[in-house]
Amino acid sequence: MTDIRQEHDTIGDWGKRIDDLIEGRAQGALFNVNEDDDREYDAIFLGGGAGGRFGSAYLRAMGGRQLIIEKWPFLGGSCPHNACVPHHLLSECAAQLMLERTMSGKLWFQDMTGVRAPIKELIDVFRKGRVGPHAIMNYQSKEQLDLEYVLNAEGTILDSHTVEVAGRRFRAKNLVLGLGARPQPLACDGGDLKGVYNYVNLVETLDYEPGNTVVVVGGSKTAVEYGCFFNATGRRTIMVVRTQLLKLIADQETRQYAIDRMTDQGMEIWEGSQIERLESDAQGRVCAAFIRTPQGVERVETDFVFAGLGEIPNSEMPAKVLGVKLGAKNEIIVNHKLRTSVPNVYAIGDLIGSPMEMFKARKSGTYAARCIMGEDVSYKPEDWPDFLHTHYEVSWAGLSEEEAKARYKNIITIKMPPDTPDGLNVALPASDRTMLYAFLEPKMSGFQKIIIDEATRRIVGAHHVGYGAKDAFQYLSHLMKQGLTIDQLGDLDELFLNPTHFIQLARLRAGQRTLKNL
Amino acid sequence: MTDIRQEHDTIGDWGKRIDDLIEGRAQGALFNVNEDDDREYDAIFLGGGAGGRFGSAYLRAMGGRQLIIEKWPFLGGSCPHNACVPHHLLSECAAQLMLERTMSGKLWFQDMTGVRAPIKELIDVFRKGRVGPHAIMNYQSKEQLDLEYVLNAEGTILDSHTVEVAGRRFRAKNLVLGLGARPQPLACDGGDLKGVYNYVNLVETLDYEPGNTVVVVGGSKTAVEYGCFFNATGRRTIMVVRTQLLKLIADQETRQYAIDRMTDQGMEIWEGSQIERLESDAQGRVCAAFIRTPQGVERVETDFVFAGLGEIPNSEMPAKVLGVKLGAKNEIIVNHKLRTSVPNVYAIGDLIGSPMEMFKARKSGTYAARCIMGEDVSYKPEDWPDFLHTHYEVSWAGLSEEEAKARYKNIITIKMPPDTPDGLNVALPASDRTMLYAFLEPKMSGFQKIIIDEATRRIVGAHHVGYGAKDAFQYLSHLMKQGLTIDQLGDLDELFLNPTHFIQLARLRAGQRTLKNL
Repeated sequence: MTDIRQEHDTIGDWGKRIDDLIEGRAQGALFNVNEDDDREYDAIFLGGGAGGRFGSAYLRAMGGRQLIIEKWPFLGGSCPHNACVPHHLLSECAAQLMLERTMSGKLWFQDMTGVRAPIKELIDVFRKGRVGPHAIMNYQSKEQLDLEYVLNAEGTILDSHTVEVAGRRFRAKNLVLGLGARPQPLACDGGDLKGVYNYVNLVETLDYEPGNTVVVVGGSKTAVEYGCFFNATGRRTIMVVRTQLLKLIADQETRQYAIDRMTDQGMEIWEGSQIERLESDAQGRVCAAFIRTPQGVERVETDFVFAGLGEIPNSEMPAKVLGVKLGAKNEIIVNHKLRTSVPNVYAIGDLIGSPMEMFKARKSGTYAARCIMGEDVSYKPEDWPDFLHTHYEVSWAGLSEEEAKARYKNIITIKMPPDTPDGLNVALPASDRTMLYAFLEPKMSGFQKIIIDEATRRIVGAHHVGYGAKDAFQYLSHLMKQGLTIDQLGDLDELFLNPTHFIQLARLRAGQRTLKNL
Repeated sequence: MTDIRQEHDTIGDWGKRIDDLIEGRAQGALFNVNEDDDREYDAIFLGGGAGGRFGSAYLRAMGGRQLIIEKWPFLGGSCPHNACVPHHLLSECAAQLMLERTMSGKLWFQDMTGVRAPIKELIDVFRKGRVGPHAIMNYQSKEQLDLEYVLNAEGTILDSHTVEVAGRRFRAKNLVLGLGARPQPLACDGGDLKGVYNYVNLVETLDYEPGNTVVVVGGSKTAVEYGCFFNATGRRTIMVVRTQLLKLIADQETRQYAIDRMTDQGMEIWEGSQIERLESDAQGRVCAAFIRTPQGVERVETDFVFAGLGEIPNSEMPAKVLGVKLGAKNEIIVNHKLRTSVPNVYAIGDLIGSPMEMFKARKSGTYAARCIMGEDVSYKPEDWPDFLHTHYEVSWAGLSEEEAKARYKNIITIKMPPDTPDGLNVALPASDRTMLYAFLEPKMSGFQKIIIDEATRRIVGAHHVGYGAKDAFQYLSHLMKQGLTIDQLGDLDELFLNPTHFIQLARLRAGQRTLKNL
């Protein structure tokens, strides 16, 4: 073990230190523990991912004492290590490659005929660079947020107040479990062959350049995000979807626009299908997939299968040692105070089940901290905005058109492109990052829609396929929950050409006492 | 003249019709006037740009009767014809080219050594495609918004109630002037040579591919936006700035980050300088610029000079005919009801001076309409969010750090990258469209900062250089005006990796009773 309490590494120093530990050039736990503080810990956060780190920061900021125990040599958890950050890098490449392929040979763009973008090299770029964000979080947590932590050593729960790590026992008034989740394995013959990846082992173990055909299993966020990237690299990409693709996009018109653009890019979407088995070559690597489709079983030759099947909470140790109650999907059950069934034990993040999203991990951590520190608050994620990447960014908040129609007597929609027979040929919507499409391939310039309850004039749903609107949906969603009306929306100041054209489109209609579609 | 009242062109039909009129293959005014309505017009909007069209839509939606008179064969004004839309197309190319140059030869990116992107071909792409958005606006205005309009004929003001157009006189209770503005000419010897452009004649008349050196005159939005594009094409670009570049970015740290990245791209910024004269070749085209700099006069050979010097309101006719009062910059002076000094005459948009922005054009139009229709409302643009393009999108709302320090006793800043000696080497902030930079050229991954009044915990300033945040600033700015605190901001649901990292950074600090920088 190394006591780093008196060391004050720069971000650059931290990068080197973390890299050495990840690559096995150094070993041992890192102790950043304030031995001069004789107060009992208010909480031990077991797991220093998003939830544990944010919960710790909040608790510490409130004046409490906390300790994070984390098996990896860095804080921040799976997100910057093998989940959201690599996915964002690859989705950026998907968007960029789609643009280059669409513009191939035009203007200054290179001829993309036959260009196959590397997967392994990109993964290597990520793997090499990921210690950067790790380093920031270790630095920030120690030097700016004043957190105590033990890194690079797995904690063992002894009881609801005690955790052992690297030979030392730590006791706290409360235990906050933030152990995350892991990818669900592909459960079929050959599901564990070399060449079968999920988002974790893709980053950790990919050691060859995949061939020309990729089989992706799954139909939700992870599968689609990685699938679109594989497609954009120039490989045949088959999405094997048990039921329907992208069911999580509730608005059917938005969903269809997103799927149509995926299909335009040559993606093969095999719905109602599943992997029957994977075939191995002589070296134990996958060489073909047998896929059961509504038309029968197809054999597809491939050396690269990606499973994007959702995640399983890492709840085994707390269930076994503490007896915390679990739900049907292995998630730890908590109440609105983030309390588990065991007194003084809280759980946060992916460990408590869906939505397994960053905002929930972080917020559940901070709310657990506030409850522990005696605040009378409660937290349950509700009506959150959401997004995913295809080759585009798809964002939504509030209700789908179908949901709104079921809930309200009369709904109004305002959308772009216009709902006319030639609407898709129209160079709108367009804004940053879709301008070249608008002028050279209009149907690729995006889709957007707001849904209004006619009676109250409130915006009850917002949907967007394009770029540059994802961030806005965070704030727009909040305004919608406040009760934002078409009149208030139309009175905002747009930054033209705004990726969400909602403000000006609302303004065009806001003068009406009885609203109409647009 | 053509009476189109009974025609119902599709968007595609409109595109062809507008193209024929612009290119001179057809002539004559288009009358879309409801001859069956014998009500007097509540307002004639002279000028069918953003202000006139939105004002008309609002007035009509309220049940009033309006007529737009527009000299061009399309509604929407200069924005989609030669101003904001081409600028967005070119700024998109600037961002794309900077990425390709930075990644040159890496991954799948082409080797950009010596690649010079075409200017003329891009302008041609725009010129060919611009009738698309025009067509939508004519279609939407007639078929969906039920507006009356006369296009492709200049209106002549006869008195404060009467306008003559294409041989017909129209009378209204009120006149709303929306005549826009035009680029300020380059006032120096040779300022009118061939090869000297502004944003209008660049689009309308460029007929050769510019050579290797571009001289841009001006230091504000238009100059910087076009200058960064010219630079990104691979040409030597000299910005000739009378005082200082980008004074409109009040936050000095944000401004410096933006300027440093421009300089990194090889832009030459000559502050305290101005064009003394332009030299002509034998064919009457510019061949050199004499630039007075603090170090003396420099002669720069160039066949392409771009003036981005601001705009002059087109107030001559109303001043002459109606005697409306003008301000120092030729703008028509209006009160908060958008009323000019002449009874029943309103003015809107760029014609009433700065800010010459889309949101003001549209909103002033709708507020004029509401006043005319008897609503007791008033409008004066205040505390609007703003943005510009460099190779990046630069967005801001509220106060700069300097302004906040002058106004409040104690301010707190939260920023990314961290304010450490190695901060610029840090792969944060990063999000959509800066991921490749984060991993391969971290200092290019952006800059962002929020400013908080410690006493009230309110967010009083927000600043961002990067991508994908511009749209968010519309809604964030509104929330800030509502009094958004760090606690409320930290309680929003982020869509990670959010281009504005503000939500999660605020949450890291929100637990503190006494706030600290981050």
